[in-house]
Amino acid sequence: MNKLKKGCLIVFSGPSGAGKDTILNKIMGEKENLKLSVSHTTRPPREGEINGKSYYFVSRQEFIKMAENGEMLEYATYCGNYYGTSAVKVQDELEKGNDVILEIEVQGAEQVMKKVPEALSIFILPPSLSELKKRLKNRGADSDEVINRRVKEAEKEIALAHNYDYVIINDDIEKSAKKVLKIIELQEMKSQNMKHIIDEVLSSEKNIG
Amino acid sequence: MNKLKKGCLIVFSGPSGAGKDTILNKIMGEKENLKLSVSHTTRPPREGEINGKSYYFVSRQEFIKMAENGEMLEYATYCGNYYGTSAVKVQDELEKGNDVILEIEVQGAEQVMKKVPEALSIFILPPSLSELKKRLKNRGADSDEVINRRVKEAEKEIALAHNYDYVIINDDIEKSAKKVLKIIELQEMKSQNMKHIIDEVLSSEKNIG
Repeated sequence: MNKLKKGCLIVFSGPSGAGKDTILNKIMGEKENLKLSVSHTTRPPREGEINGKSYYFVSRQEFIKMAENGEMLEYATYCGNYYGTSAVKVQDELEKGNDVILEIEVQGAEQVMKKVPEALSIFILPPSLSELKKRLKNRGADSDEVINRRVKEAEKEIALAHNYDYVIINDDIEKSAKKVLKIIELQEMKSQNMKHIIDEVLSSEKNIG
Repeated sequence: MNKLKKGCLIVFSGPSGAGKDTILNKIMGEKENLKLSVSHTTRPPREGEINGKSYYFVSRQEFIKMAENGEMLEYATYCGNYYGTSAVKVQDELEKGNDVILEIEVQGAEQVMKKVPEALSIFILPPSLSELKKRLKNRGADSDEVINRRVKEAEKEIALAHNYDYVIINDDIEKSAKKVLKIIELQEMKSQNMKHIIDEVLSSEKNIG
């Protein structure tokens, strides 16, 4: 039945350090037909990040050209770098019946939720601001100055959490991953995704045997 | 945390014979804080039905008086009888922080969804119209004439299934019961129910240690 219907677009956001990556690492591969969209970015790769897997790493010039050509479903600047999602790639996966997760910054998430109101949106919340700061420090990727800026941005982002369908407080990775999977599974039962089944029942034979 | 917030109102509907009762029998007692609202009706009790548990069985006159006094959250006639829900009893349970399931006919469900748009609504769909007819026959409670009328009403009701949040096709009681429980559990993570947690994180201390 899944093959007949288009997949579901899933907006997955939350402040840097909330644990989005770790949760997605747990759930990817756990569910058939669930694909992670790979974003484009102009920020330099961190150690261990692979082009085409973590991100498509592109130059500022290339990125701006894509955006100007209308090829981006969303894009945003964050701490001085561009991040964006290619609309064509997402559309391809949805047409195949795959559910597609967009792991994106809050600015980009707002754009997608406006453009695609039927998208499922999930916000990952850190248990507290001090815990967020601790996680960013432990990651060791950023200077104190950048961390303080990220925490400040996080406050603004968390204030927008009520715009999402679901909010998960990430105080336990295993539990949070399970919650995300359950939310995605339940999408199949949302009435807008059951239309073809409702029609099937209504057109079924009324007589017994 | 549950004690601080009001419970969730759950509209649980679908055609007669879809399996609403059987599903609810499976899930009641499985989740703390989940209560089943007891409706008022003017239809005569079936064998084994207990006043105050299955329904509050009242006279036509009593029912009309309650409705005129505005004491009903919803009411409807179905096959010549009145069915309704006392607003006061539901409100009491919600204030205590309990989630309250209203198992109601489709007409009544439409009223509640209009009055309480934030209610969670679940529609139980039979796998086919012939299966519905078979179940009604097997129940042995109604004449062929009543059964045919119920199937005709069912068609009209199923055509309204898209108005609900979730639609479950009930081809397996165990699975359907699990799906209903999952849907209810996830309500806690809906952003409108996470407002106090979002506020808590925002007002938390930013410094580590």
